[in-house]
Order: sequence, then structure tokens, then C-alpha cells
Amino acid sequence: MFVLTRPDAAAQAALDMTAARKATTVDIPSLRDYLHGGAENRQRREDIVRVLSADPVFSKVGRDNMSRSKLFMRGQAMTRRLHELQNKLNWSNDDLRRSLSILDETLPLTLHFQAFEPVFNLQAGPALHAEYSALVATRGILGCYLQTELAHGTAVSALETTATYDPATREFELHSPSLTAAKWWSGAAGRTATHGVVQAQLILPGGKRMGPHLFFVQLRSLEDHRPMRGVVLGDQGPKALGGFAATDNGFVRFDRVRIPLKNMLSKFAQVTEAGEYVRPPHDKLAYGGMLYIRSGMVTGAGMMTAKAITIAIRYATVRRQGTPSPDGLEPQVISYPSVNGRLMPILARAYVFLRLGKALSSLFTTIAARLASGDTSLLAELHATTSGLKVFATTTSIADIESARRSAGGHGFSAAAGMGRLYAEWVPSASYEGDNYVLDQQVVRAALKAYRALKPGQTDLPPSSAYLQRLTGVENPPSGFTFTSVEALVADPSTLVALLEWRAALVVRELANAGEVTGMDAARVARAVTDAFVAARVAEMAQEVEKDGVRKEDAGVVKRLFVLYLLTSAEAALSDLLVHGLLCGTQEVGALRGTIATTCASLVPHAIGLTDAFAFSDWELDSALGMYDGRVYEALWERAQREPLNEKEVTDAYGESIKWVLQNGQRRAAEAQRNAKL
Amino acid sequence: MFVLTRPDAAAQAALDMTAARKATTVDIPSLRDYLHGGAENRQRREDIVRVLSADPVFSKVGRDNMSRSKLFMRGQAMTRRLHELQNKLNWSNDDLRRSLSILDETLPLTLHFQAFEPVFNLQAGPALHAEYSALVATRGILGCYLQTELAHGTAVSALETTATYDPATREFELHSPSLTAAKWWSGAAGRTATHGVVQAQLILPGGKRMGPHLFFVQLRSLEDHRPMRGVVLGDQGPKALGGFAATDNGFVRFDRVRIPLKNMLSKFAQVTEAGEYVRPPHDKLAYGGMLYIRSGMVTGAGMMTAKAITIAIRYATVRRQGTPSPDGLEPQVISYPSVNGRLMPILARAYVFLRLGKALSSLFTTIAARLASGDTSLLAELHATTSGLKVFATTTSIADIESARRSAGGHGFSAAAGMGRLYAEWVPSASYEGDNYVLDQQVVRAALKAYRALKPGQTDLPPSSAYLQRLTGVENPPSGFTFTSVEALVADPSTLVALLEWRAALVVRELANAGEVTGMDAARVARAVTDAFVAARVAEMAQEVEKDGVRKEDAGVVKRLFVLYLLTSAEAALSDLLVHGLLCGTQEVGALRGTIATTCASLVPHAIGLTDAFAFSDWELDSALGMYDGRVYEALWERAQREPLNEKEVTDAYGESIKWVLQNGQRRAAEAQRNAKL
Repeated sequence: MFVLTRPDAAAQAALDMTAARKATTVDIPSLRDYLHGGAENRQRREDIVRVLSADPVFSKVGRDNMSRSKLFMRGQAMTRRLHELQNKLNWSNDDLRRSLSILDETLPLTLHFQAFEPVFNLQAGPALHAEYSALVATRGILGCYLQTELAHGTAVSALETTATYDPATREFELHSPSLTAAKWWSGAAGRTATHGVVQAQLILPGGKRMGPHLFFVQLRSLEDHRPMRGVVLGDQGPKALGGFAATDNGFVRFDRVRIPLKNMLSKFAQVTEAGEYVRPPHDKLAYGGMLYIRSGMVTGAGMMTAKAITIAIRYATVRRQGTPSPDGLEPQVISYPSVNGRLMPILARAYVFLRLGKALSSLFTTIAARLASGDTSLLAELHATTSGLKVFATTTSIADIESARRSAGGHGFSAAAGMGRLYAEWVPSASYEGDNYVLDQQVVRAALKAYRALKPGQTDLPPSSAYLQRLTGVENPPSGFTFTSVEALVADPSTLVALLEWRAALVVRELANAGEVTGMDAARVARAVTDAFVAARVAEMAQEVEKDGVRKEDAGVVKRLFVLYLLTSAEAALSDLLVHGLLCGTQEVGALRGTIATTCASLVPHAIGLTDAFAFSDWELDSALGMYDGRVYEALWERAQREPLNEKEVTDAYGESIKWVLQNGQRRAAEAQRNAKL
Repeated sequence: MFVLTRPDAAAQAALDMTAARKATTVDIPSLRDYLHGGAENRQRREDIVRVLSADPVFSKVGRDNMSRSKLFMRGQAMTRRLHELQNKLNWSNDDLRRSLSILDETLPLTLHFQAFEPVFNLQAGPALHAEYSALVATRGILGCYLQTELAHGTAVSALETTATYDPATREFELHSPSLTAAKWWSGAAGRTATHGVVQAQLILPGGKRMGPHLFFVQLRSLEDHRPMRGVVLGDQGPKALGGFAATDNGFVRFDRVRIPLKNMLSKFAQVTEAGEYVRPPHDKLAYGGMLYIRSGMVTGAGMMTAKAITIAIRYATVRRQGTPSPDGLEPQVISYPSVNGRLMPILARAYVFLRLGKALSSLFTTIAARLASGDTSLLAELHATTSGLKVFATTTSIADIESARRSAGGHGFSAAAGMGRLYAEWVPSASYEGDNYVLDQQVVRAALKAYRALKPGQTDLPPSSAYLQRLTGVENPPSGFTFTSVEALVADPSTLVALLEWRAALVVRELANAGEVTGMDAARVARAVTDAFVAARVAEMAQEVEKDGVRKEDAGVVKRLFVLYLLTSAEAALSDLLVHGLLCGTQEVGALRGTIATTCASLVPHAIGLTDAFAFSDWELDSALGMYDGRVYEALWERAQREPLNEKEVTDAYGESIKWVLQNGQRRAAEAQRNAKL
């Protein structure tokens, strides 16, 4: 019926993808292992993807048309199926966690693993542990973490919920003294969890308020799932942008709910039977879990960015637009500097975040061991660093996902593009686990403290304030910077690290001298400090590329990505660099921008290889624009044919509404014409 | 049951709002008229809001829980109801359009008004006009605009759909020669429209290709709404982030569909019966409609920003967080420089966009009159200016809506906050009506052309390149800038305009000298050019504030908003200003930032008044956080109680999934414990 009369853009797209894949020289298998933490991890991940993508319970067809209630029910069915698969295939709990991270939607079960279980395991006392740890580990009970309240978030000291100890019965009484004391945003609390760990103000006999502590409480019956007496709870309603639809973030109010003494999580602070308080060895020991979650968010940012950039680069490779060349074909849009100049830096950040996440995990495992043995010397330090990294990784990746989506023009706004979903699921990361605006202030406070403690000639600075070293010696800030060549920077990126470290040092010093933090300073200064920390890590990572298993032939390409990362970090810091004389005049700035542009262009031939190395299946990406085979137009067409609104030839809206509108208009038009003739 | 034992945060929120409202000195009625284009317009808008908000058809309760199909059907019911109201209340078509702009979701009818009717009215020939104009005006037919195709967007010259003239029958044959020729993204085409205006390549006898032209075509029967023979069409599926859910953006394929000669829109270009082509007087005359739409998008950006900032400022006024002061209350978060430093510039941009939109409408009405009389001298100029404004207004307002949403922390991610919806509905504006990335390039091209045409001593530059005047005289660029005081800048903001004009001039000159546009230059240069144009308009607007009806006592506050706008524009341009020596060193930059911070702080006491002046009803904002009375926590609580997932005490998911998971876990835990004992 539709006979072709000119080269077919749909077929051309597939040809373009094949050609681009053929042209790339990087070795996918070794890069894939490099990005996924080794061959074993990568293989395990791949096996689970194969299982899930073949199982109809995890089908993604039609989900963009489902109501939120239906998406919730579907998520619960997926949760059951994951456990059936665990039984059947002998998955470890690590495998189960892996399967959750592979799914592109957050299930209530995620909260059990990420928010409930680690806190329980780290802080439950022996009696509680003996009674519940096996059930926690097998999901014989399902947990949630209850901290945020309706009127208070990050600042736990202001929470309203109370836990009052009664020595007569050796019980705590959990209570919500007001509407605004209702726990809010607690994932899985709304409709799923049977138990929770709740942050409440501990009140001892005599009304002595001891500040927020953690308590273990049963929320729903294990017999019939009905709420326990005195517990009022439910789902808090849908989230913005359709995000987190399958998760029942909810509210919980306690009306004088009694729990036994042992239900206080007592590993670090205890109450005796008589009602006396036993101090924890270190105030902040309890925050260990949060630090771990935050460092995991760097890897999360890397994965989300990797998905978005895979889709955007594949689409930009097959999309053609502009003045045709002699062969009659329009240029591939990835060939435009305005497109590759936007996409390649995002690709670079995906690589950086994935590897940085790995580097941090090792670092934090070491520190966790020191913590466990009572050494808390690095804790404050670590807290500031992870805060800065959390802000930086989430803010940047959210913006990158949206840039990737917009790079696809109109089609990027289709749900079928898959990038909107990434955004909706990831954008709350700017607010949860510490609101980014609040964390910025903490980073700045820690930086000012480190600056003020700085001694001349000091050489033993910890990694997070290593940039301040620049101020301790006789070295003067470099005045001006020569952008030699990308090759020279690939061989030795240390000048770029110096640039970003000097910038952080001078910005912090300026703020310290100014005496007050006004307006938007915090975000700018926190970024400078984090940039310096990350730049030093990236230079280390660049040195290790081959040792980490990348082929010698490919190491240059990966290092070029890392250099591009540092160059674009410098460009984003331009006004700081100029104000402090670290960069001067149009020529140097032009050279920086020129180097970025040529680096981006030089990476285009490798773009498909470098994104294939993320190894996402079509099922994982669930994107018509990100199809592995480049057949994006057929994919868009096929998805449109499945749209439920198209099931009937004539929409039901015709009989109910449209027909009336048309007939009303026709009557009025006829009247108007009659009147005109009179 | 829940007895209060401490000051109630929910009640305090209402008290805070009342106090803030009492403290404001600005006169709401006159400011309201100033922002809504006069008392008459404002009153008309208010009347319609009253009608719609009282009508259950326009209830917003529960819509965040509806599937997309349901939201589409609901939109159709609203469309019928709007027409019933038009009949009943004698609304003009302008009133109907107003009602559409009041609704916070896009209906297919919007496309009839914005995309179909203007093109039809401007370009239909006499015969077509006589036959259809009354039906178009009354919605006796429902229209859509068919331009974008599956494989081609903004660049109309590459569209694949053909319209081949057959002199034998005096008909055109519309045809889609491939899958990728399918019209795509056409709003209202999917399931609603009966007719469309289609962009197709005109082919004359002998195969002579004349480029893209517009044709009028019937898509569906007026008898039963079934698709016409040879027309394959449908809805293309859901959009990202749940946006545009009620609109049936769709696909249309033509299989040799015949339409009569008169169906070519022949006002500007014609085909004779014999098949000869009659040239249009001016190639670009047909673009007039698009220019008008783009300038309307500046007002749209202002309205969307105004809604988001009203919600954010109200919430920041009643939300308390931090170290309590002696009265026992934590500070209102709006008192933090990091919060008001973020929100006040957004408020300033809302004011600027709303007034700028009005200024542009008048300007374009004048120019349209000159166009109609054949004077096309300003058309290219106008095209570049509106392109730049469209990019600037949409990009900025999208970012501002998201900043406003994030300023509300966790609650900002609730659908009940209402800001996610604003984002989802507005974010595609970066891609439609000309993709922002593509338009940037056009702005730069026009700027370079204007620069190259510049003559020494020239004084007759049109508004869009007025900044180039700076280069024509003996004046040297200012070296350094003194930020005297906000009062001095309010009295005379011309130094700030000069700063932004010099920056545009120097950036364009630098690019012209560099010889090539690389990487990300286009966005930066386009922004500089548009900033200069807008800065000049803002200075004009500041001079007219009192003349435009604002009380003398309030004019200072409005002008301070305008100065804040200019200051933050300069801050966003910092790296350009520093590179070109227009600003130097830490002291000047510190003074700029300091001035911004003090200006923001000084506006806090007026913030509630300045946002009340937008005059949005609670129904319009549909936001628990933006409640007029400040009772945000009660509103969040009440919405949660309406969540459908909470209807049953025990979720259906328990029987289907959760119970199995728990019992499976309990069995495994018992097994593990048995094994441990062995």
C-alpha cells in the first residue's frame, strides 16, 4: 500500500547503526567488565537480566498507560515473582538486590534492603537481633524506615514523635503528639511493611529528653496484615512526574503504642531497665549507614546517566537532519558540534561516576572497618566528602539526563523514548538522603573549618581537604594556563587537577576572609571543593586504566574521556578561574573551549562502542530511540500501534463529547450564515 | 485521640501566612491589573475562573491517579462542557481561549485554536474560506496542524509527504511514500480532529518539486467520525513525565488521498488549474503565525513561572526549619539567604516575562499590520528576535519551575505539590515551536549577519541589534563596574543595560573574528544577544511602571524586582563579563553578588504580596503547598486520605503477593534456624 519512492529513512537508520558499530575500535568485553566491576559481577548481572527480561511478570509493555494503583499492584506482583525466582534459582540476597537495581522502577522491597535492613543489622541489640534477624534476612517480615515527618525532614533533632520510657512496664510508648508529627515519605510504610524502624525523641523518667533515637515497631499483623492497634497509616498519594509509582511512600501516626525495652536499637546507646541512659561511644557512629548509601548514589548516578546517554547517542547516530551531502543523505546529527559537544561530556561523566563509585566503595569499606574498631577520626571528614559527592553526583546526573532527553528533540518527549522515566525516577535523589541545598551548607562549614585549622607547611591533609595543601607551601597560584594538546593532557592531567585544586583553595580562602556566607555562595563553594576532590580521584583513575583491565589500545580513549571530564569541569568553573586569575583573557578561554570541542569531535567515532560497553539490553533501556539495532522509527511506530486509545476505530469520546461539539458548531455556523444573509 | 503537647506546626503555618500577608505593603488590586493586562482582562479571567472552579467537570480531585486513557476522556468531557458554557454564558471565542489557558492541562481544542485556525485564516484562499471559515470559527469542524513527520521535524524542506497536482482532475494527491513520512506529534490528530492543514512537498506536472506547501484535508467523517478513505491515523502513545495526557498527539499517513485544487492554502502561493505555479510575494510571509505563537510563549513562560513561584514562596513562608529562636520557633525557611537568594530572582523573572509578553504583543501587532500591507523589511529581524526570546523564555522558565519545586525539599516531589505537573506540561516547550538548540544557531547567524553589515557611525539599528550600536561610536567598553546601591540602580538601571549590551557586542565580535562556531558557542552567544534585547526592554518597562497603573508607593518594589532581574542576568553572564574585562577581580564580583543577596533579602517582606498579585485561586494552583491560607500540612494530610490505595484496610496486594512473600520468608527463616541448631 505504501510504495517507497526514495531512500527509506527507517532502513537507513539501521544501516547507520551497523556502520557506526563496525567503525568503533574499542573492545567491548573488556570495557564492559571495567565498567561493571569485573567479569564476575558483569556476568551475574547479565544472567539476571536474561531471566527477568524473559519473564512476562517483568514485561514493560503498556505500563505508561497504567494508573498509579495498577503500577503499585504490578510492583507487588514483581516482588513476589523475584522471591519465587530466588527460591527456584538459588539466588543469594545479593542477587536479589542486584535484580532490584536492574529493574527501572523502585519497589517497596528496595526500602527493606536499603533503609531498613542495614539499620537493623548495624544497631539492633542482641535480644532483638536474635528474635528478628533471620526474618529480616528472608523477608519473613517486611520493613521500612520511619524518619521524616510531615513538618520536619533532614533535621532529626526537631522531630516530634516521642518514645517515652516507662520503667514500671519496661516499655516505651511511641506517640505522635500532633498531625505534623505523622511520619511521612516512608517508603513501603503505606501499604506493604509489617515492621519499621522509627526515629523518635527518647524521653526518660522525669521527662528527660535525650534527643532522637531508633526503635523497632510492628506496624501490621503477620496474621492478616491489618494495622496494629494505635497505628494509623496509609499511602500518601502519587508522586510528581509519575515517579516512584510502585512505591507506597506513606504516613504513620502512633497513638500511644507500647513496645518492649529491647525494641530500642541499642547497639550504640542504651536505656537500662531502671531508665538510665548509657551514652554511645561516638555521637555520629550511627550515621555510618547513611554514608554508605550516599556513596552508592554516585554509582547510581553513573548508571542513570549511562542509560540516558546510551539512548541519546544511539538516536543521534541514526537521526539525520540538515543539508544533504553529495550522496543524498543528510548529516547524522551526532556529527554537529552543538550535539556532540553536549553529549560527549555526559558520556565522560557516566564513565567517571561508575568508576568513582567503585573507588569510593573500597575507600568506605576500609573506613567502616576502622569505625567498627572504634576509630572515628575520619568520620567528620568522611561525612563532608560524601555530602559533597552526593550533591554533585545527583545534581549533575539529573541535569545530564534532561540534556540527553532534550537532545532527542520532539521524540525525546515521548514516553517511548524512555528518558523521561529515568528523570522522574532519579530527580528526587536531589532531595532524599539529605536535601542538596542543606548538604551544601555542611560541605562549606567543613571546608571553612579545615581552612581555619590549616598550619603552614602542613603535609598530612586527608583526601577531602588535600586541595588546601596548595596554600601551605611557597607555591604561587598559576597565572594563566596553557592548553597544549589533548594528547599531552592524556599523558599527564595533573595541570588540570592543579587548576581545580587552586580554584577550590582560593574560593574557600576568599569565603573565609569575607566572614559570612550569603545568598548562593554555599552551592558554588561546595561545588568547588567537591570538584577538587573528584579531579584528584579522576587523575588517579586515569593512571590505573590499564591496570584495571582495559586493553592498551583502548586505554587512550578512556583517558581521553577522563580528560574531557576535567576540561568540562574547568569550563563550568570558568567564572571562578577568571576572578582568581587562574585563567586570563579571551585567548586562554578560547583555547579551553576549543580543546573541549576537538576532544568531543574526536570521540564521536567511538561513541557507539563506548555506550555499547555499558551493556544495557533493549529490555533494560525500554526505549524506542535507544534500540540496539538502530531501528528507531519502526520501534516508535510499533509502540504507537499498541496504544490502548487506538483499540477502537472511533473513540468513545465521539459519542460522549466530540459529536455534540461538532453538531453544536455546525448549528451555530448555519445560524451565522443565515444571519449574514438577512 | 491525638492530644497536642507542644505548639502545633500546622496551626503555626496558618498564623505565619496571615502575618506575612498582613506585613506586606503592596496594593494587590492595582498590581494584579498590572500583571494581567488591565482591569478588564483581569476581571474577565476571574469570572471564568469562578465558573470553571465551581463546575464538577473541571474538578481536579483524583486526576493524579488516573490512567492516561481516562485523562484523555476527561479532557474531552471538559471540551464539551466548555462549549456548553459558551452557549449558556454567551462567551466569545476569546473567552473560550481564555478558559483553555486557565486550565492547567493542554486539551486537543488548544491545537484547533493555536495551530489550525490561525493558519487557516491567514492562508486559505477565497473559495476554501467561504466554505469552511464559519465551521472553523464554531468548531463545526475540529482541526489540527500536520507538519512534523516521524523522521523529520523543524526542517520543513526535508519533509517526505507529497502533494502531486493532477491537472486532469484538478486535484492534489496527498501521499506518504514511506513509514517515516508519517505525520507525527500532531496534536488532536490522533483521535479528535476532523480536518487538518498538512505540510507537503508540492509536485507539479512533469515532476517539478516546488518545496513544502500547506493543504487542507479532511481526516474523519462528519457523519460517524470514521477515518476517511486512505487516511491511516491514531494516537502515538503517552508522553514523558505524564505530560500532555489529555492531548492526542498522533500519527497520520496518507495513501494517495485526493483533494480538490481549492484545498491548497493559496493566499501566498497558488497553483493554476493548468498546473502552473504563482510565486508568493515574500517567501517568509507565511511564518507570521509562528512569530505570534512564539511571542505568546513569553507570556506563557511568565504564567508558568508565576504559578511555581507562588507555591514555592507560600511554602517557604510557612515551613520552619533550623535552630529555634528565643520564642521557641524555628526560622521560616524563606529567611535563609540560600532560599530567598534562589526564589526572589525567579519571582523577578515571572514579573519580567509577564510584562515583556505584553510589550511584545503590541510590537508584533504593529509589525503584523506592516506585513499585511506588504512591508517585509523587519521580518528577518523579527524572526531572529522571537527565536532568541522563545529559547530564553522557555529554557529559563523550565529551570525556574524545577528550582522552585526543589526548594520545597521532599514535599516538592509529591504530586500534591503541583509543581511537578507544571514542569511536565511546560518542559516540551523547549522542543516544540522550533527546537531550542536549532533556534540558537539561527539567532547566532542573524547576529553575525548584523555585525558584518554594521557601518561606522550607524545609528538606525533595529531593536534586535541595538546593542551593536556600542561598537559603532568612539565609546570604549567600560572597564570595571561599580555597584553603587540598589536605590541608585532603581533610579537608573542604564549602567546594567550597558553592561549587558557591551557583553553581547563583544561576544558577537569575538565570534565573528574567530571565523567558526564550534561546540557550545551557539547557546552562549544567542543568550548574550537575547539578554541585551531583554535588558533594554526591562529598562523601558521600569520607566513605565507608574504610568502602567502601579501605585507610586509600590513602584519602587516593582522596579527593585526589575533591577534584581538585571543583576542576576549579569551574574549569569559572569564569565563573559570577566573574559572581556567588563568586570574585574574578586571585589567587583563580590559586590555584584552582595548586591543581589541584599536585594533578595529586602524583597522577602513583600514576597507574599507580590505573589498574591498573580491572583491565582487555590483551584488554579491545585497545590497543597501553595494553599492561600497557609494550611499546607492539613492539605497534604487530606489529600493522602483520598488516595484510592487507602480505600481498603488491607491492600489486595496482600492476598495476591505480600502474604506469599512473608510466609515464604518465615518458612526459610525457620529452616535456617533449624539448620543452625543441627
